[in-house]
Amino acid sequence: MPVVTVEMWEGRTREQKAALAKAITDAVVDIAKTTPDQVHVVFYDVARSDWAIGGKLADDLG
Amino acid sequence: MPVVTVEMWEGRTREQKAALAKAITDAVVDIAKTTPDQVHVVFYDVARSDWAIGGKLADDLG
Amino acid sequence: MPVVTVEMWEGRTREQKAALAKAITDAVVDIAKTTPDQVHVVFYDVARSDWAIGGKLADDLG
Amino acid sequence: MPVVTVEMWEGRTREQKAALAKAITDAVVDIAKTTPDQVHVVFYDVARSDWAIGGKLADDLG
Amino acid sequence: MPVVTVEMWEGRTREQKAALAKAITDAVVDIAKTTPDQVHVVFYDVARSDWAIGGKLADDLG
Amino acid sequence: MPVVTVEMWEGRTREQKAALAKAITDAVVDIAKTTPDQVHVVFYDVARSDWAIGGKLADDLG
Repeated sequence: MPVVTVEMWEGRTREQKAALAKAITDAVVDIAKTTPDQVHVVFYDVARSDWAIGGKLADDLG
Repeated sequence: MPVVTVEMWEGRTREQKAALAKAITDAVVDIAKTTPDQVHVVFYDVARSDWAIGGKLADDLG
Repeated sequence: MPVVTVEMWEGRTREQKAALAKAITDAVVDIAKTTPDQVHVVFYDVARSDWAIGGKLADDLG
Repeated sequence: MPVVTVEMWEGRTREQKAALAKAITDAVVDIAKTTPDQVHVVFYDVARSDWAIGGKLADDLG
Repeated sequence: MPVVTVEMWEGRTREQKAALAKAITDAVVDIAKTTPDQVHVVFYDVARSDWAIGGKLADDLG
Repeated sequence: MPVVTVEMWEGRTREQKAALAKAITDAVVDIAKTTPDQVHVVFYDVARSDWAIGGKLADDLG
């Protein structure tokens, strides 16, 4: 039942997402005491032009 | 004012989304006692390669 | 696997939430072609003082 | 640390998003008393065919 | 129709939220060209013990 | 900049959340190649009476 949502800049590969999903799921199972099939991990890739830090879109950051 | 967000795997047609939006809105209006114009339903299609269950990306599930 | 999030003003009863969860799940199963055990519905009650429309917190609306 | 998420219909330009990110960040810094580098603003463009109001997908609204 | 969600540490007053909602709504109306009644701003107060930065819960940060 | 949101049933202790935040942050840093200070992890505890599976509120599940 835990749902873990990961919002990050686009550009990560399928392999990185697969590894992250595995590592996060393992952590949730070990620490929060649930079973793997209950853990959902959902990735949202966000373009740098859709994410601002300090009031500037990230593709304008140095 | 209720905002209902539906996250599901991509692949549903426009007709399915229209029917779902109608059914969900009717349920919210009937049960939660609001008016239809107050109900927003937002769909997020998620690729199977962005959704893991049990630590595996869903397009790797059998 | 669909996750449906319902954000609405606090004040709905447990019975209303149970009925909404049932109606939304039935609609998702019928229309989006999945099985009931795959459908999660999550409710977030929001205080009117935490929800603004037209720039005014909702507990200040007439 | 505040994270501000803006969900709106697609179609706003990069310039509009940059201006919005700046205005929202300034407001958060001034009013909520934080520093600019702590403020994240994330935009999600939603197609009108993925957003229903009153039970109708928005691209069907008049 | 834009929905703006503000997640920040708990502790802001009602006056701060009212002022933020007003400022954000004005910015969205001016820049994204919509009408005020279409703009929803939703606040989620998060305890510092529910928000980690750098792998540490924020109430453990110096 | 990655923001990881964890929605799960209430009842996890502060120690469990601290351990989860650490494990998730380490995984994101290692796999997605960012720095720890960029990683935010936000927990939302959801009551079982606010989370339905298969159309039933979870506190009604066996």
